[in-house]
Amino acid sequence: MNNGIRAYAPASVSNVACGFDIMGFAIDQPGDTVTVRLTPNPGVHIRSVSGIPCSLPMDGTRNTAAAPVIALLKHCKTRMGAEIDIHKGIPVSGGIGSSAASAVAAAIACNALLDLGMSKHELLPFAIEGEKIASEAVHVDNLAPSLLGGFCLIRGYDPIDIVPVRAPRQLWCTILHPHMEINTRESRKLLPRSVPLADVIRQTGNAAGLIAGLLQEDFGLISRSLHDVVAEPVRKHLIPGFEPMKDAALSAGALGCGISGSGPSLFALSTSEQTANAVGMAMGSVLTSLRHGWSVVVSGINQTGARIIPANNDEPA
Amino acid sequence: MNNGIRAYAPASVSNVACGFDIMGFAIDQPGDTVTVRLTPNPGVHIRSVSGIPCSLPMDGTRNTAAAPVIALLKHCKTRMGAEIDIHKGIPVSGGIGSSAASAVAAAIACNALLDLGMSKHELLPFAIEGEKIASEAVHVDNLAPSLLGGFCLIRGYDPIDIVPVRAPRQLWCTILHPHMEINTRESRKLLPRSVPLADVIRQTGNAAGLIAGLLQEDFGLISRSLHDVVAEPVRKHLIPGFEPMKDAALSAGALGCGISGSGPSLFALSTSEQTANAVGMAMGSVLTSLRHGWSVVVSGINQTGARIIPANNDEPA
Repeated sequence: MNNGIRAYAPASVSNVACGFDIMGFAIDQPGDTVTVRLTPNPGVHIRSVSGIPCSLPMDGTRNTAAAPVIALLKHCKTRMGAEIDIHKGIPVSGGIGSSAASAVAAAIACNALLDLGMSKHELLPFAIEGEKIASEAVHVDNLAPSLLGGFCLIRGYDPIDIVPVRAPRQLWCTILHPHMEINTRESRKLLPRSVPLADVIRQTGNAAGLIAGLLQEDFGLISRSLHDVVAEPVRKHLIPGFEPMKDAALSAGALGCGISGSGPSLFALSTSEQTANAVGMAMGSVLTSLRHGWSVVVSGINQTGARIIPANNDEPA
Repeated sequence: MNNGIRAYAPASVSNVACGFDIMGFAIDQPGDTVTVRLTPNPGVHIRSVSGIPCSLPMDGTRNTAAAPVIALLKHCKTRMGAEIDIHKGIPVSGGIGSSAASAVAAAIACNALLDLGMSKHELLPFAIEGEKIASEAVHVDNLAPSLLGGFCLIRGYDPIDIVPVRAPRQLWCTILHPHMEINTRESRKLLPRSVPLADVIRQTGNAAGLIAGLLQEDFGLISRSLHDVVAEPVRKHLIPGFEPMKDAALSAGALGCGISGSGPSLFALSTSEQTANAVGMAMGSVLTSLRHGWSVVVSGINQTGARIIPANNDEPA
């Protein structure tokens, strides 16, 4: 037995309005912390789940943190097993990459525990094993930013082609979390099977515009590009007060606002922490007026991604 | 009467594979040269068309060079008219922005002739009047680069939002022109009315990837992004030898290859003039083996767009 290795992986916003299934970025907090310990007997067990209350499967084959560990142990051909402690900082089914962060943190911790020396890019396929449990198809637009930090473009899926995209340092993110859950699988069923050509042109123009805005540090262009004509029109109806919340965010000075992942959380991007706070309050007021519970997080963009937490550091984040 | 003002506008490649209706870039040559002279009587007349043989309408209301002049004269509320000489360097219906270049050159020349002092961005709506004659819907993915030079992203059309995108200086373009014509309106009729969601994700990923590749000077990423899953699958059948020409271009070292605009020309991008020449020869050999006529142009990316040609300069390009 040993003390195990602990890793932190940040929450992330996928889709980013115009980048359906191809864009994501990581935020500094919240995040999930996963500790992995080797055991002499084979098998991977979830020893504990703490933090935000949730009902994650404790079964190793159905838990997003366990799957990467199982895959890495198999890769090493070791006969040892592992036990896992999960500290959830990210609400499950909230739309900010909860399952991805647990999978990433587990992969990062296990890589260090087994002294594999794999790069983050090399660990991606193992982290994907966790995400496969949460979603029918493989999506890496939460995994990639949680692992690598910053903004990530997923240029293609066959093979997976992740492009880190430099973003202006002064961007701040507001996450408004309405107190409800949306199941990712159910939310995907709402998506259109095909998109009118005129909307394809809008979406490609905006996705390309967002990349140009980030790389050229053009906040006006970022703002003009943050529109989603593919998923938002069908998914927004699942979220109470979506339209007035979005209007409130923009009125309070946000560059743009949309559904984070498959929801129900909304994200907004702003050019200062002060504006990001005001945006959160403006959005929350809408939900309060609807007598709907909510919480808000204001965070900078996480630039470094998942990381090992030294053993003497008791604070997960 | 007066000597008139002469302007040159370069050919351009629109769509650029993954950027259907949202991307274009200008090439140094060929280009169209348009001379505009004021006349004491109202009305706009085409006095001559020289250069590459073609059958352009001489009627001022149906000619792409005349329409911007009519619009600018109207804007000035002058009672004078104008006569226009057009020197075509760009083949009509070749797919490299022939109508756009004539409209742009006419607008640039007329702006100087009338001493209006408009910026290029201010002239765009007048140049669009010319493009409207050539195409049912307004497209500016040839107009914008011909006017401004370089790579242009058309982020949106409502309102028109043109984003100049810095591109690596070492890019070279090969244009392979099979000796045939494709009518833009007919070619647009082939387009799908809607696109499967999986293809929308591919197209947005590639469009965003191309922008990131250009701005981050990542030639591998540019190469991986130059794929079109929207227009090429239906339009390639109009072009004899398209697939083997594309294969030949890639084998000869091109970063990517696709249909230029609505065709029939193909474009390829390379990282040197030498490679761009080899790419042209490789593509041409395919058409020769099919006993089909062709011509080739190898050009750098035009960085400055349309320009006035001083009166003492007899050479149009």
